[in-house]
Amino acid sequence: METNKFEKIDKPSVDSLNSILGVPFPVLDDGFVRVIDYMGADESIVQAARVSYGKGTKKVSEDKALIRYLMRHDHTTPFEMCEIKLHVRVPMDCWRQWIRHRTANVNEYSTRYSLAIDSLQKTAPEQWRLQSKDNKQGSSDFADTALGVVLSEEEENLHNIIKKAYQKRIEMGIAREQARKDLLLSTYTEAYWKIDLHNLFHFLRLRMDPHAQVEIRSYAKVIGEKIVKEWCPIAWEAFEDYKLNSQYFSRREMKVLSFIQTNKNLSEIKTMLNELGFYLKHEPSKPSRELLEFENKLAKYNFIIPWKE
Amino acid sequence: METNKFEKIDKPSVDSLNSILGVPFPVLDDGFVRVIDYMGADESIVQAARVSYGKGTKKVSEDKALIRYLMRHDHTTPFEMCEIKLHVRVPMDCWRQWIRHRTANVNEYSTRYSLAIDSLQKTAPEQWRLQSKDNKQGSSDFADTALGVVLSEEEENLHNIIKKAYQKRIEMGIAREQARKDLLLSTYTEAYWKIDLHNLFHFLRLRMDPHAQVEIRSYAKVIGEKIVKEWCPIAWEAFEDYKLNSQYFSRREMKVLSFIQTNKNLSEIKTMLNELGFYLKHEPSKPSRELLEFENKLAKYNFIIPWKE
Amino acid sequence: METNKFEKIDKPSVDSLNSILGVPFPVLDDGFVRVIDYMGADESIVQAARVSYGKGTKKVSEDKALIRYLMRHDHTTPFEMCEIKLHVRVPMDCWRQWIRHRTANVNEYSTRYSLAIDSLQKTAPEQWRLQSKDNKQGSSDFADTALGVVLSEEEENLHNIIKKAYQKRIEMGIAREQARKDLLLSTYTEAYWKIDLHNLFHFLRLRMDPHAQVEIRSYAKVIGEKIVKEWCPIAWEAFEDYKLNSQYFSRREMKVLSFIQTNKNLSEIKTMLNELGFYLKHEPSKPSRELLEFENKLAKYNFIIPWKE
Amino acid sequence: METNKFEKIDKPSVDSLNSILGVPFPVLDDGFVRVIDYMGADESIVQAARVSYGKGTKKVSEDKALIRYLMRHDHTTPFEMCEIKLHVRVPMDCWRQWIRHRTANVNEYSTRYSLAIDSLQKTAPEQWRLQSKDNKQGSSDFADTALGVVLSEEEENLHNIIKKAYQKRIEMGIAREQARKDLLLSTYTEAYWKIDLHNLFHFLRLRMDPHAQVEIRSYAKVIGEKIVKEWCPIAWEAFEDYKLNSQYFSRREMKVLSFIQTNKNLSEIKTMLNELGFYLKHEPSKPSRELLEFENKLAKYNFIIPWKE
Repeated sequence: METNKFEKIDKPSVDSLNSILGVPFPVLDDGFVRVIDYMGADESIVQAARVSYGKGTKKVSEDKALIRYLMRHDHTTPFEMCEIKLHVRVPMDCWRQWIRHRTANVNEYSTRYSLAIDSLQKTAPEQWRLQSKDNKQGSSDFADTALGVVLSEEEENLHNIIKKAYQKRIEMGIAREQARKDLLLSTYTEAYWKIDLHNLFHFLRLRMDPHAQVEIRSYAKVIGEKIVKEWCPIAWEAFEDYKLNSQYFSRREMKVLSFIQTNKNLSEIKTMLNELGFYLKHEPSKPSRELLEFENKLAKYNFIIPWKE
Repeated sequence: METNKFEKIDKPSVDSLNSILGVPFPVLDDGFVRVIDYMGADESIVQAARVSYGKGTKKVSEDKALIRYLMRHDHTTPFEMCEIKLHVRVPMDCWRQWIRHRTANVNEYSTRYSLAIDSLQKTAPEQWRLQSKDNKQGSSDFADTALGVVLSEEEENLHNIIKKAYQKRIEMGIAREQARKDLLLSTYTEAYWKIDLHNLFHFLRLRMDPHAQVEIRSYAKVIGEKIVKEWCPIAWEAFEDYKLNSQYFSRREMKVLSFIQTNKNLSEIKTMLNELGFYLKHEPSKPSRELLEFENKLAKYNFIIPWKE
Repeated sequence: METNKFEKIDKPSVDSLNSILGVPFPVLDDGFVRVIDYMGADESIVQAARVSYGKGTKKVSEDKALIRYLMRHDHTTPFEMCEIKLHVRVPMDCWRQWIRHRTANVNEYSTRYSLAIDSLQKTAPEQWRLQSKDNKQGSSDFADTALGVVLSEEEENLHNIIKKAYQKRIEMGIAREQARKDLLLSTYTEAYWKIDLHNLFHFLRLRMDPHAQVEIRSYAKVIGEKIVKEWCPIAWEAFEDYKLNSQYFSRREMKVLSFIQTNKNLSEIKTMLNELGFYLKHEPSKPSRELLEFENKLAKYNFIIPWKE
Repeated sequence: METNKFEKIDKPSVDSLNSILGVPFPVLDDGFVRVIDYMGADESIVQAARVSYGKGTKKVSEDKALIRYLMRHDHTTPFEMCEIKLHVRVPMDCWRQWIRHRTANVNEYSTRYSLAIDSLQKTAPEQWRLQSKDNKQGSSDFADTALGVVLSEEEENLHNIIKKAYQKRIEMGIAREQARKDLLLSTYTEAYWKIDLHNLFHFLRLRMDPHAQVEIRSYAKVIGEKIVKEWCPIAWEAFEDYKLNSQYFSRREMKVLSFIQTNKNLSEIKTMLNELGFYLKHEPSKPSRELLEFENKLAKYNFIIPWKE
């Protein structure tokens, strides 16, 4: 490995990202995400990988193949060499989920030091969601608009009551750190949020997922599709292919899939499913939740499900 | 180093901590902290340090000297060998500060999956604090009780309005994940919080500090004085001596302190203070904030401050 | 959620693990792994999950289903509630890989403070591995024994030369911190290594993988199969099913798999493969590395590969 | 807080750092440190702090006061907003210490994938250090040159033997991952190392300390004084004042210092020292290690030590 001759180093600069530097992408009714700064680009991932492999830079087509290889095989450290800093404005309720990702650097707006931001997330009449019946932590359809109108009116009412109460406490000289105790979770907060690309991909994989709550999903989609896609287009495409939209099957599931490639005997298949624990132990005619999820995956990809025919 | 003969290992067990396992220590009006589990004790710190030093166990008096030495010289890794798991109940406003410590493991009660906890932090009439004049992020005296009575009444009123609005949304079938957006920050949440002793000490140093907000300070005090002190008494004492109650002086301050030990010439002292930047550049007769803080430290410990005599 | 009535808490104790507490499992020629302490068990994962869901404890069969559900859906925080502390003895070369996992607590034997451990990893004549032709970072077959005998003799020779040189430096009064600079990477070191179950699973998934180097794989296998399997048997089984032995397919691969369920037209399949980028751009008759990996996966599970028939 | 009007954002650019981008600073006989990329500057620290405080940008003099205030009061998160990526070449022995800092991103040269770097750290005859008598983990004076000449010759000899043995293994077709097991710790490795400014300061505080081993201290000094000082000069000066060269006193020590400001009675002072535990319990006439360290601090700053007069 030659280390005596050093090429001139330039900080990678991404034109498409420079052009949106500081520009807010609106999210929800009064939130936004904007890029404050970034470090690195697709080429930095390649450069870091090539330190590991002790090799010089190569052609672009090989760069792409290399980035895809790294993503496919969970060689994650080169992706940590890119870093981005965002300015986000987000309701506190949503921020409570966001902040659970521990691998970022954060500077949040302080309602101890300053007056709370005078903006609360509002819900339009047609946006009220009903509790999902089968998913305890999700929502399903929208409530009908007649109900929505009532709820949105009451929401506005609540917001006004709380704003006034907060203002009154401030006017009476109560400390900001105490006055804020009765702010609503819908109050907007702001933060600088800085994270490396590997950990950002992890965040996006969880928060762009259909099971993520719609509010944080809106932010994740903007970050992914408006920002990361511009910033590191090759890495983004690899992420979409291998992480965001990939499909995994458990050992049990692969055993079944493998078996039914060559064996069409229905009773043997059912025996196998039973032995692998796909039916409830105490009620062997009832499919486990795991089996239902397996069947959903198969249906999604047009696979035949012999035991359901 | 002999590694072929292994002594019998016992999990360290701390009687005084076992006796309070699961017992809630009340904090604020309806919060608590309780120990769910722990791993290690003072002796585990010693044991880990002695792996580094390649030595066997010794006498208790030397254990104490070793633990103090480790704390004094920032040899932090042996303290990471102890771990504790707490169950805490805390208002969301306070939890927002708590969760900023990224080095803990957390399972928080989910208001997406379950109904919000039906309890909000209440403020007694004599507990309302006034905004500090000189510290933008602090509070000073208590408001007078006449005002306190009014504020506490209004607080109760707000809590009832918000509870009803939340209940109504739930009854109308609105998804829990959305209904919760207009909960108050004073709503209690619960969490399992697991952390190693080194990082816990870091948390306690920041949150037992007089600048920390009184609510989180109440929790930190209970964790420190009721729990850690019982769990690892030697480490706790060292922490109190070297971290919690130690005093540090900047390079500049030490230069002044050193100078005035031997030189009592006031004008020379003032010249020194000036050259070190202790007065405002644009207004050299005015002490900087740094100088005021220095003088406060000196006064606290009965030091003579020659330039103020 | 009822929080006023607290059941008595007991620290979970795992009989099968207690019986091996402190007992070294040999690895390589002179290494070992032994459990020093642990916190939690399968039931702690359930307990933590149920804090999130605001529910009391239930039946064992439901505990198992819950743990499997958590593992399947990447709800990782409850697994962080279990913690284990190991004492390991491992060659420095292997430790260099090990320490790259940043989420553990570590106290390593100090060759600055103490004399280096007087033991180096030896290679038996039949254990010398040849460089893999097709995998730049792997090995393939064993060298033939005649060569192995020579290499092992030379290895012993080297070890003796280096040991003597180190001893001489020490005898001449050279500082240990400097004398050690010419120790061999095969020198054994020891450490206390403490990690939570979630991060341990991550370590095991990477280090039990066939692509991991055989030395660290030996340690990972012992930790997984001799220790974690005893400690948290339900979580271990779920890990084996959903992580260690699961199979994932990229979006592209699933597109192809889905397509060939219903379409057997070979030229259309080939067109699809081409459009999806499975052949080299500049040499369209040549399969990409990605395609070869895809075909290997399909072959492994007895899937028909229509384009290769 | 006004959030609707966004100023144009520019990535901060530091001329003095741009001019050394990619330029290697030599360390030891064949090592180096060079800057590959960076993000942020002094002004980014201010910018992040002002998000927390909800305020716009101000004058430079206030920027400096703000940065110093943040450093002085351990408000560390704004410093995390700056990030730097270095390319380092360092002996493996030194790298073993370096990598213990877990808060950085790392891509290291792989001796599994590529041949080991053909360079080992050499020691000049006058650079051999003797084991310290009173500090078990340190060195003191240099060995005399006659001995140094012998040791350096033997060192060269060792390096040649090991190089040849490695080459032979490679020529015989042994896998690189196994051939490397008998490389020396003095072998150079290279890495990309990326870290935020707060964590870099923490690294520098520990590794620029006189107790740190001279080799890693050489790297830390270059990083601090040649790179960080150019990159963020205001933060660097604050770091020097408040962290690197500050002096701390324990609670016990401050009690004594406070007492002797007003009380000169020697026997009362000695009683106090005794009660505070400054003498050995079992041998009360003997000062504890803690007392000796205290006296050293006092002497360093010209304080009178009444009990030693």
